[in-house]
Amino acid sequence: MSSARLSGVGVSPGRASGPVVFVAEALPEPPATPEPTDPTDEASRIGPAAAVVAARLRERAEAAKGEAKAVLETTAMMAADPALVGQAEQLVTGSSLPAPRAVYQAAGGFITALEAAGGYMAERVRDVRDVRDRLVAELLGVAPPGVPELSGPSVLVARDLAPADTAGLDPSKVLALVTEEGGPTSHTAILARSLGIPAVVACRGVLDLGDVAGLVVDGDTGEVEARTGTVEVRAAESTGRAEWNGTGVTADGYRVKVLGNVGTPEDAKAAAASGAEGVGLFRTEFSYLSATEEPTVAEQRAGYAAVLAPFAGKPVVVRTLDAGADKPLSFLNPEPEPNPALGVRGLRVAFDRPEVLDRQLAAIAEAATDTGAQVSVMAPMVATAAEADWFVKRARAAGIARAGVMIEIPAAALTAREVFEVVDFVSLGTNDLAQYVFAADRQVGAVAALNDPWQPALLRLVALVGEAATAAGKPAGVCGEAAADPDLACVLAGLGVSSLSMNAAALTGVGAKLAKVKYDQCQLAARGALAAANPKAAKLAARAAL
Amino acid sequence: MSSARLSGVGVSPGRASGPVVFVAEALPEPPATPEPTDPTDEASRIGPAAAVVAARLRERAEAAKGEAKAVLETTAMMAADPALVGQAEQLVTGSSLPAPRAVYQAAGGFITALEAAGGYMAERVRDVRDVRDRLVAELLGVAPPGVPELSGPSVLVARDLAPADTAGLDPSKVLALVTEEGGPTSHTAILARSLGIPAVVACRGVLDLGDVAGLVVDGDTGEVEARTGTVEVRAAESTGRAEWNGTGVTADGYRVKVLGNVGTPEDAKAAAASGAEGVGLFRTEFSYLSATEEPTVAEQRAGYAAVLAPFAGKPVVVRTLDAGADKPLSFLNPEPEPNPALGVRGLRVAFDRPEVLDRQLAAIAEAATDTGAQVSVMAPMVATAAEADWFVKRARAAGIARAGVMIEIPAAALTAREVFEVVDFVSLGTNDLAQYVFAADRQVGAVAALNDPWQPALLRLVALVGEAATAAGKPAGVCGEAAADPDLACVLAGLGVSSLSMNAAALTGVGAKLAKVKYDQCQLAARGALAAANPKAAKLAARAAL
Repeated sequence: MSSARLSGVGVSPGRASGPVVFVAEALPEPPATPEPTDPTDEASRIGPAAAVVAARLRERAEAAKGEAKAVLETTAMMAADPALVGQAEQLVTGSSLPAPRAVYQAAGGFITALEAAGGYMAERVRDVRDVRDRLVAELLGVAPPGVPELSGPSVLVARDLAPADTAGLDPSKVLALVTEEGGPTSHTAILARSLGIPAVVACRGVLDLGDVAGLVVDGDTGEVEARTGTVEVRAAESTGRAEWNGTGVTADGYRVKVLGNVGTPEDAKAAAASGAEGVGLFRTEFSYLSATEEPTVAEQRAGYAAVLAPFAGKPVVVRTLDAGADKPLSFLNPEPEPNPALGVRGLRVAFDRPEVLDRQLAAIAEAATDTGAQVSVMAPMVATAAEADWFVKRARAAGIARAGVMIEIPAAALTAREVFEVVDFVSLGTNDLAQYVFAADRQVGAVAALNDPWQPALLRLVALVGEAATAAGKPAGVCGEAAADPDLACVLAGLGVSSLSMNAAALTGVGAKLAKVKYDQCQLAARGALAAANPKAAKLAARAAL
Repeated sequence: MSSARLSGVGVSPGRASGPVVFVAEALPEPPATPEPTDPTDEASRIGPAAAVVAARLRERAEAAKGEAKAVLETTAMMAADPALVGQAEQLVTGSSLPAPRAVYQAAGGFITALEAAGGYMAERVRDVRDVRDRLVAELLGVAPPGVPELSGPSVLVARDLAPADTAGLDPSKVLALVTEEGGPTSHTAILARSLGIPAVVACRGVLDLGDVAGLVVDGDTGEVEARTGTVEVRAAESTGRAEWNGTGVTADGYRVKVLGNVGTPEDAKAAAASGAEGVGLFRTEFSYLSATEEPTVAEQRAGYAAVLAPFAGKPVVVRTLDAGADKPLSFLNPEPEPNPALGVRGLRVAFDRPEVLDRQLAAIAEAATDTGAQVSVMAPMVATAAEADWFVKRARAAGIARAGVMIEIPAAALTAREVFEVVDFVSLGTNDLAQYVFAADRQVGAVAALNDPWQPALLRLVALVGEAATAAGKPAGVCGEAAADPDLACVLAGLGVSSLSMNAAALTGVGAKLAKVKYDQCQLAARGALAAANPKAAKLAARAAL
């Protein structure tokens, strides 16, 4: 028996081992020949096949819960998209392509556009590919790609799992996930955490492991050990049984609000059901994404009210539209940019189109009145105090008393003192902040190790903001993935962060952990992590204190 | 008489006023019809036209000096590029296009590829367009686009000036430059500074000024005043007559080395002739850019030695290859990335291909021996102390005793203390650092105001590095455009920076300014700028002290 060691980025904690199952790669590109004998007949196969694929995805969505459900529903909608089916049909009748090839090419057009758009939209590429491959398989009459039926508990290995795959996973059969690509903020990572399965991403070489019987996966350290002999089947110790009374507070009474990140009415219900004390980040892009033109104030008001409803009487922070070249909305006419993540996005769009912002603020104010939620607003992608001031004045003019900004650009953290002079609160978006602090794209696996929220450089910027918050007597929250890690949540509290906002699945784990520690332990953990030389050392130093 | 005020980003200091001359926009897209009656004959027109355009550009290059000369020579080479001519000829003979259209389309292919590549390569797009338009005009028998013959002293207004245009400008006739687009690190800005002409970029609305008699341009504040009545013709006070004895030192004897940024043997000669005490940044990409495969160690050695030769016995900091998806080199096979500036570039390329770095280090070590220059090396795009350590060990193994890193990623500045534990020195690349600190692409005019080196957030990061340098007893230099601004140079010195590296044209101005001030004035200026709320206030606070 021999073993090999690989190293990736641990993105979902726990240690597990077991036999390995490789997820099949996508189908080969379907050939453009032979020409169909009857193109009209051939084209007519596409619509029904799409309906079958969409129905199967919807079926799986019904059986799923929370985020998994939302991901499967989105993918099902994409499969039934008349634009995709229509373009594929045209390629069959117009260019005499076989139906599978036509679907492949039509999807290719969407993929190119999404990739060119970058950012949020590029993250959808994986979903389009998934739909494309399911549809091609259906047309070819072969089994759909993706995770095979599992005969027993297994460690799954893939290039990068599609959200639709991870969403349908049965945690009782999947011991751990390891992917060759992907990053800490990828959907794979987020879903693995929400399912409580250990996961390692950006684990280069794992697909090249040949004759391997099993893997030992450490989701904390990112280490993956491959063994040729038998491997003990061992699941990670479940942390899901933690209990939490729904109030974010340390064992010695230090208050740290535990809030939900939401985007849809369903998210909001899930967050409320999981005990969120309020919402720290309400992403409003969902109200715009399906629209080809700007939704009216009345439409927006109804959309926001549906999300706010479960939080009547509770605090909700609504983030204004975060669009741009990386998250293009057709009515804003974004121009293509060489680096969309560094371009005109977030509040920067509003400098040219303040009327769009004003209409959104009006709709938010009305939805707040409709629902009785304690609404405040914050702007995304703010770099300077002057920008923050511009936004706060517009929010107040719209009748929203409490206004703040996201801190996700390093400059805003470095001038937090000046920013606090003009805002009521700030919220640290650690995912984007890390991307800029390390000049490391969240979407690129090769630089994923830099995008680790335990990186001391990132924590030092958080500390600057925490100090400025304390000096100003105003709150600083965190609404990035960092807040969803129970140990890191304690460190953030120790750095002066007064609220943590996360996906519904993470609420209980974070709330339970806070309830177990004293605040001076959090401060000790924070000091240890700040002084550490690298993320691994920061994690160890923090754990020693907690 | 009425007046209107516009505001842009001041990128080259001084105040001037005079009548306005608008630079004509590019020619309209040439039509694809009619088909040439004799395609072979039509195609044969392209080569000679390209030769004429190239010859004219070379002629202008001969009359020019320094950087202007280099820019014109590059553009002339592009005009004579057999790939461009060959592809255009093929489009005429193969697709029956008129010659102007064929040139337009062939250039379009290059432009798309460069734009997709982003970063350094995308900055070349302006040059390709310029060559394309000159060639199309030559084939159509019309006057070339660009700056018209000036009848007298004028303020030039353009969308974004081509380097070839600014390079050929006669400073005695051009009072100031104002562009609608462009940023502080654009070629237009750099060249305007080197010519001593006031310039304002990213001045939105300036192209829409209709019936305007003249402009008053303030290159310090970025303010542009448009007047319908007569405007006094006033040139900026020349700062070109400053004298400097070639040693960077303040009036009270505090030493700050004044060094050159170079990329070619000609740059190196110009820097040495202008009194550079050494080289703070030798960009080695030029040795690779024309190569389709990796140059051999012998080829590299000869290329580096030609640049090092003028600095025998003097310090030269050689930066290892800074390539990636934004500066693609075909032999490295970079994959396209959604945000090339946040992807696998600089040292990150070497993690996968260390042998390419090792060969470069070997060639640098040999060229150092050949020339007697005091060579040290530094790596670009370093994020962590661990990465710095990896590089320094490889440099030492190659026989190069002194090794450091660029600080151009915020994380490296935030962990400067740890970085200094493993390196001999650091050099702040303020252009890229600003891009990441503000999440603002250097190439996008709409976010140009953020990319101002006087931004207090940027200066605070520089201060962190200066403090770490002082604590470690090791030097920190600056090699971004910030170092070329005499007032800002004093501020940087006050923040603990011990060397400033810049284009040849800026050396005398910076050296002369340092010689006039005392070090405690620099420190006072630094404190004032650090505490300021915005770039304008920082500039005023610094000037009050200097």
